[in-house]
Amino acid sequence: MDTIYFRSLLFDFYGDLLTDKQRDILRMHLVEDLSLSEIADLRGISRQGASDTIHRGLELMEQMEEKLHLTERFIRLQSLTDEIEKKIREGAGQDQILQTVERMRESIALSTNQE
Amino acid sequence: MDTIYFRSLLFDFYGDLLTDKQRDILRMHLVEDLSLSEIADLRGISRQGASDTIHRGLELMEQMEEKLHLTERFIRLQSLTDEIEKKIREGAGQDQILQTVERMRESIALSTNQE
Repeated sequence: MDTIYFRSLLFDFYGDLLTDKQRDILRMHLVEDLSLSEIADLRGISRQGASDTIHRGLELMEQMEEKLHLTERFIRLQSLTDEIEKKIREGAGQDQILQTVERMRESIALSTNQE
Repeated sequence: MDTIYFRSLLFDFYGDLLTDKQRDILRMHLVEDLSLSEIADLRGISRQGASDTIHRGLELMEQMEEKLHLTERFIRLQSLTDEIEKKIREGAGQDQILQTVERMRESIALSTNQE
């Protein structure tokens, strides 16, 4: 998977766990796509300081993903939704659609402890 | 919502964030439904010690829920799945089913930052 996309998802899901400073700088990096130098200039910090903050924020979010799998679950549920929609649009039989709905139900219920 | 059920969901989703000791004692409390005295006896700790560990574990999980809303999202997605299944079984029209699928898609995508 595209790293930038994956990191944006991480930020979407775990951004609220970061400090205000980390969130501010990660947003400039991941959402506004600013360079380290631009971020450093805007916030009056060194390029290295901006880089360290981004690195620590990403590390925290990756650790949370290892434990909670929120991003992984999101991707799985999104793809099952695509599948259900495709089957409905193609006029698939009730049983066939319900099979995918059942997989959706299992994926929703699958907690980290059960995996 | 039933408190025991909600706490069990919290434990399902956030249990991996607890220390081994917290997880062990919370499991005895929430999954095996043991009393404080039983837990204290089994682990050779005081009844107060067991109670404190449970309290701290629940507090941590509630703080995580406030930021990540995993349990809340789970309940919403589960109820939308029920709705989709019901519409399919009742032979609802394609458009009607797709409407609920669309709400499912939005609920899946809704991250904490966008709420």
